[in-house]
Amino acid sequence: MAVRHYTLDFSLSAPADSSTTVRGLQSIFQEQEMTETIHNTEGHGYLATFIGKNGRFVVLRIHKHGLVTIDLQCYEADNLMQVDHLLNALEKKLKTLLHKNIRRIKRLPALQRGAKVDRYWPTADGRLVEYDIDEVVYEEDSVYQNIKILHSAQFGNILILNGDVNLAESDLPYTQAIMGSGKEQYTGKEVLILGGGDGGILCEAVKLKPKMITMVEISFHLHIDQLVIDGCRKHMRKTCGNVLDNLKGDCYEVLVEDCVPVLKKFVEEGKNFDYVINDLTAVPISTAPEEDSTWEFLRLILDLSIKVLRPSGKYFTQGNCANLTEALSQYEELLEKLSCPVDFSKEVVCVPSYMELWVFYTIWKK
Amino acid sequence: MAVRHYTLDFSLSAPADSSTTVRGLQSIFQEQEMTETIHNTEGHGYLATFIGKNGRFVVLRIHKHGLVTIDLQCYEADNLMQVDHLLNALEKKLKTLLHKNIRRIKRLPALQRGAKVDRYWPTADGRLVEYDIDEVVYEEDSVYQNIKILHSAQFGNILILNGDVNLAESDLPYTQAIMGSGKEQYTGKEVLILGGGDGGILCEAVKLKPKMITMVEISFHLHIDQLVIDGCRKHMRKTCGNVLDNLKGDCYEVLVEDCVPVLKKFVEEGKNFDYVINDLTAVPISTAPEEDSTWEFLRLILDLSIKVLRPSGKYFTQGNCANLTEALSQYEELLEKLSCPVDFSKEVVCVPSYMELWVFYTIWKK
Repeated sequence: MAVRHYTLDFSLSAPADSSTTVRGLQSIFQEQEMTETIHNTEGHGYLATFIGKNGRFVVLRIHKHGLVTIDLQCYEADNLMQVDHLLNALEKKLKTLLHKNIRRIKRLPALQRGAKVDRYWPTADGRLVEYDIDEVVYEEDSVYQNIKILHSAQFGNILILNGDVNLAESDLPYTQAIMGSGKEQYTGKEVLILGGGDGGILCEAVKLKPKMITMVEISFHLHIDQLVIDGCRKHMRKTCGNVLDNLKGDCYEVLVEDCVPVLKKFVEEGKNFDYVINDLTAVPISTAPEEDSTWEFLRLILDLSIKVLRPSGKYFTQGNCANLTEALSQYEELLEKLSCPVDFSKEVVCVPSYMELWVFYTIWKK
Repeated sequence: MAVRHYTLDFSLSAPADSSTTVRGLQSIFQEQEMTETIHNTEGHGYLATFIGKNGRFVVLRIHKHGLVTIDLQCYEADNLMQVDHLLNALEKKLKTLLHKNIRRIKRLPALQRGAKVDRYWPTADGRLVEYDIDEVVYEEDSVYQNIKILHSAQFGNILILNGDVNLAESDLPYTQAIMGSGKEQYTGKEVLILGGGDGGILCEAVKLKPKMITMVEISFHLHIDQLVIDGCRKHMRKTCGNVLDNLKGDCYEVLVEDCVPVLKKFVEEGKNFDYVINDLTAVPISTAPEEDSTWEFLRLILDLSIKVLRPSGKYFTQGNCANLTEALSQYEELLEKLSCPVDFSKEVVCVPSYMELWVFYTIWKK
């Protein structure tokens, strides 16, 4: 049984008078037959807790610097209408008591804690966002990671790997961006996809009638695994269509192998591609490359990819969210240090389920 | 001084053993020199509160049905590294204590309560979302409403009216959608814009060389006011360009008048338009039309607009967020009851700053 956690905050122009405020609210808590405990905060304002029926619990703090915060926790099976009335009563009374002193009243949608279906998936830049998720469609723990596919009424099914939103069925703009935003001519071309386990890129690329697509599906470093492909084939069909049903089609082949040795083999064989699409990983948030092996890996993949790219070819990849400017700069510095000199452009794209703008790179040989 | 409110929740397969769990955590709270109060919950699990240095406050609840919740409140001026260590210690210890019983551990980004700049602007479907807002650029209370323009690193300036996100500088997709998603030919056409106080539609429409745009700027019913135009002209220039600098241009005119009498006058005069773009209001969330005068108003505007529409003309408007299916159905029912029979199509669009998909309507005479 989940806990609903309500907050109600009054920001004030000047500190509130504790005794008046407390006295003013007393009758409301008494009506609710709540048991009050007053705490000694050692000079940090007034703090009282109230225990009520059905596990209801309230924290009232009158902070010293012009802020009154109220927390109300109750169980989801509680009478939520009653709980709402209680909050309304507290809000109304505080409005009267604090009146001209009020700068802002903030009452947030209740946090749902410990619910069966988890709705909170923070953004890459660390913001709290709640999704309209109503069902767990698929959940597996592979040897590498936790894999979830959750259903959102508006975004369709969403693939979440180790707590990071990867791709939703609504996210065609992601796939289009990492394929060059419709500005490229894929017909008759040779394409290499690194990663892309959800099948989105492969599905869109196949429609464009390329000569051949080679997709290298597994990266031991990044733990892309068979259970991801299995889940997506079944539950992300708006994204992958039927391309994951078979590992080989008229113009594509999926190699279930680690991409590094495959890339090395391509380099040795002198195999070339018109487009290399790297969908393996976002730019790491950590900006200490020496401590994060993902940076090392990123550079290795980049170097090998540029080697298999035709002189006129293009390399596409995601960066990270637009707000992680330091990590993105670091990536751009890395681009300047590759063994083969490259130029790049970037584009900021709105991916519907991400709740933040995302940066994509196009890289080509100088 | 804002309060940072951390939550750490353990969802369990079976109820936790209170005494073992409490004893296990005791040393951590003692090390922090926190004063413990144990509360009588009358059979609703274990509940203890802890008061620490610098106004730190912790609530530990071991719920009866397999959930442990921890709240930690501290001031933003506190040593946040230390606070993080404390949470890490609690998480680590609980991992050991609860071990194989753990279904999910959830530690959300801290809520910032009472902060100078408010970052929480819930979606139309009532979800909690945090924005990357770092500055209040403009704030005015007009006789009608509270007007804010806030700066977001990724979305640019955001216009917020009475707490509702209206439009950000990143939201060209909104403007494009309400103009027919690029499928219309505006050159040489006569266009009527209702509302649109941010100047976005006017700015984009002017670029398409129409014969004449009439924008009717003020709706007394919906409280669009001069202070909105003033704020947007100054702080939303990526949206409105320079079109709000003058109320009259080569091919446009802004009438600062209530739109209802203006529309009635157009009907009387037999004035016609190729496109009517209604940017006055979203479909009301309330699905009790008899109790909400906005529904009444919506119908009036629709009827008048269809009357001034050429037989080949199109009427564009926003609906609401895709999840408010009931309100949208209600609107579609209203469309079937207009005095002049109409057909409609709808489109679901991702507006970057909205954090939810948005529905737009195209309506035409049968």
